[in-house]
Amino acid sequence: MKLYSYFRSSAAYRVRIALNLKGLPYETFGVHLVKDGGQHRQATYKDANPQGLVPALEVDGAVIGQSLAILEYLEETHPKPALLPADPLLRAQVRAFALHIVCEIHPLNNLRVLQYLTGSAGLSEDAKLAWYQHWIAEGFSALEADIARRQPSGPYCFGEPLTLADVCLIPQVFNAQRFNCDMSPYPHLMRVFETCNALAAFADAHPSRQPDAE
Amino acid sequence: MKLYSYFRSSAAYRVRIALNLKGLPYETFGVHLVKDGGQHRQATYKDANPQGLVPALEVDGAVIGQSLAILEYLEETHPKPALLPADPLLRAQVRAFALHIVCEIHPLNNLRVLQYLTGSAGLSEDAKLAWYQHWIAEGFSALEADIARRQPSGPYCFGEPLTLADVCLIPQVFNAQRFNCDMSPYPHLMRVFETCNALAAFADAHPSRQPDAE
Repeated sequence: MKLYSYFRSSAAYRVRIALNLKGLPYETFGVHLVKDGGQHRQATYKDANPQGLVPALEVDGAVIGQSLAILEYLEETHPKPALLPADPLLRAQVRAFALHIVCEIHPLNNLRVLQYLTGSAGLSEDAKLAWYQHWIAEGFSALEADIARRQPSGPYCFGEPLTLADVCLIPQVFNAQRFNCDMSPYPHLMRVFETCNALAAFADAHPSRQPDAE
Repeated sequence: MKLYSYFRSSAAYRVRIALNLKGLPYETFGVHLVKDGGQHRQATYKDANPQGLVPALEVDGAVIGQSLAILEYLEETHPKPALLPADPLLRAQVRAFALHIVCEIHPLNNLRVLQYLTGSAGLSEDAKLAWYQHWIAEGFSALEADIARRQPSGPYCFGEPLTLADVCLIPQVFNAQRFNCDMSPYPHLMRVFETCNALAAFADAHPSRQPDAE
């Protein structure tokens, strides 16, 4: 399998974690989101992935875009270790947690959106940072409250074993820390963050350890 | 089942379509996103759904948030008619199409984000509209190119039968039309839109036909 990735993309980071957890070897093909006006916008990349976004996974000659579609694909085709519980209601709750990151936090804070804010929308760097931190606080508060209410009996978002919720959370916390977000209101999230980062599958997926890292 | 819904929310609209397609009866509980400072922000709603967003589905005493988690749950528990193909790679491509709407378009253009732009970020109504239309154009161009390249042999996004891609597309087109987006560059998307809207499951899910419609 070949992963079109950018070391700092938290969506690509999610997929790297899942590939590592499932023990699936892959080749990294770096797509730089800034250089050359954004290599993801170039025809050579769009030929492979018409959505023109990172990550994408090439498998059996086909290309899958969207990190969550890739994660679900990996879960269906390489079910062990499972990253979703067996019970449908619990699966839904794990997915809802992951989707709160994937749909409510990350899309507002990714590079192309921040570029639009300071570009076309004319916001200052301070206003951009306030925007970033606002959506982190909104999203992480909801997730922190969710874990606090459930009191899972284990170190991960849904207790044990770890799930797609953790796979999506850790890159978003990494990203938030890069933008100097105060993480002290989120002790449950930070406990999960520390626990996961001690695992090789997460450590090896870290942006600083990627072949395209700067 | 009880659906916490807002007539105009395109995320709730997706879930209504899927419930109708699968022939599942449900009760609508209106959560007004504007009245009372946003009823989704009130403790009574957050007790049910700590994520504090619409929609949420109450089933067997539990509450599932996030429209895509609900759609996957319905697919797993009520598999007929299927809204995802059987082949894993094709399922991934349908999900990637749906996620392009759910993750790349809708989160940028929903009510709370538009409120932030004209509120805290101080943008004008014109700048807000430009933002809205920019992300519609970015997203719909990618989706239009995807259908044009695949040339599906059937009236839906992935030919026939219809899938979660169609379930997510139609509410987003409705939403774009409300904000006066030019849809002429997207003939493939508009053909799917017209075809789906002729079906009772889609027509009955339309915002104007909901008990909480204004």
